[in-house]
Amino acid sequence: MIKALLFDISGVLYVDRDPVPGAVEVLRSLQHSGLALRFVTNTSRKPRGQVFDELLRMGFPVQESQIFTAPRAVHHLILERSLRPYCLIHPDLETEFVDCDQTVPNAVVVADAAERFDYAHLNRAFQLLVAGAPLIAVGDNRYFSSGGALHLDAGPFVKALEYAAGVEAEVVGKPAAIFFRSVLASVGCAPEEALMIGDDALADVEGGLKAGLQACLVRTGKYRPGDEKRIALPGARLADSVVEAVAPFL
Amino acid sequence: MIKALLFDISGVLYVDRDPVPGAVEVLRSLQHSGLALRFVTNTSRKPRGQVFDELLRMGFPVQESQIFTAPRAVHHLILERSLRPYCLIHPDLETEFVDCDQTVPNAVVVADAAERFDYAHLNRAFQLLVAGAPLIAVGDNRYFSSGGALHLDAGPFVKALEYAAGVEAEVVGKPAAIFFRSVLASVGCAPEEALMIGDDALADVEGGLKAGLQACLVRTGKYRPGDEKRIALPGARLADSVVEAVAPFL
Repeated sequence: MIKALLFDISGVLYVDRDPVPGAVEVLRSLQHSGLALRFVTNTSRKPRGQVFDELLRMGFPVQESQIFTAPRAVHHLILERSLRPYCLIHPDLETEFVDCDQTVPNAVVVADAAERFDYAHLNRAFQLLVAGAPLIAVGDNRYFSSGGALHLDAGPFVKALEYAAGVEAEVVGKPAAIFFRSVLASVGCAPEEALMIGDDALADVEGGLKAGLQACLVRTGKYRPGDEKRIALPGARLADSVVEAVAPFL
Repeated sequence: MIKALLFDISGVLYVDRDPVPGAVEVLRSLQHSGLALRFVTNTSRKPRGQVFDELLRMGFPVQESQIFTAPRAVHHLILERSLRPYCLIHPDLETEFVDCDQTVPNAVVVADAAERFDYAHLNRAFQLLVAGAPLIAVGDNRYFSSGGALHLDAGPFVKALEYAAGVEAEVVGKPAAIFFRSVLASVGCAPEEALMIGDDALADVEGGLKAGLQACLVRTGKYRPGDEKRIALPGARLADSVVEAVAPFL
């Protein structure tokens, strides 16, 4: 018995800047279904407000409070632990961390920094890690799909820093179970009563299954044939798109 | 019975641009000892000729033919397999690959590219790997020491690409056994008759031991207290510097 549907956003609801055919319509139907809807993303090139605006502009009937972004979870953790982060993040995301003390950093935060992933920034992060700063990662996604090609996400740079400094990152976004659980806490349902729908076999589907959710891999966005074989746990559903994935709940 | 001494160069013979105290003098003595001397480096910010010139300028009595650099080994492999490399390398190293066909690349070569390790270059390499190109790495060194600080070497970027594309790099320089063996082939001695002296616990010492050589970790260059504990094989020697390491052979 499913009580909550969790959607990855980019690659699931839309690809590049175009809604997946039928996605806006099924979302409209679902908003009146009695199911709790949550939009769960590691996207870290923009703050939550911009994620929300873009979904609205594409016609998706979402509320900002239904959107859970990994960078906001990182921000919460930083404040909770009174850390002073060195933020290797996209310039557009800086507004999410503007209230954090970033002088004399004692932690390294890595999100999808895009062109800021250059030698100087990575070397600075590395030197802080060697000096003992913890490494906090928004996610460990390998790549994302855009303009018909795959592009490096934050994960590879997190791995680079882990290897260089001999440390292990604390991953705060998907696939971390704690992230899925914080989303479900806002619904008040058990993990097995929730279905995670995503195009990332590891972060969305394997991560969701590991956290006890049901999970469905969609063949849109970054999906490549055979991705389902990379999921180490049994029980993943497979659907051509988000429209097929939610059909049982309409 | 040792017949050959293999020296890592940077961090062992010199630190930054200063010879390790006493290193020039012991090298002079060793050149007349009857032992074969080889200088073995993953350094990939400069071609072999420049490595040679710098050693000469510091007063080290070496011959260019005694120097084995990982980039030259990669170059050899590229020609042998008729590959067209996309070279993610330092601009100064381009002369080593000038005779390789680099149009329509079907292989990715990664050396210590320094500031060229930026998002655009790494993303291009990633896309070639996804398309099936093999990943060939000069080394997998984590970091090097310069100006009193540690700096990212090529290894972390190799790991980033491996993780992103789900591939495994072929490491051609240290710690690859084949690299040590090609150096020993030029001497004509067995692995156990050679001693590798280096400041990198993994690439030099663990790598040397794995290839069957004897090995000595020196406490100069990138050495940090406790590095010897990272060596997974028994039998490593430990010395304060190259001078102490070669004392038994003078």
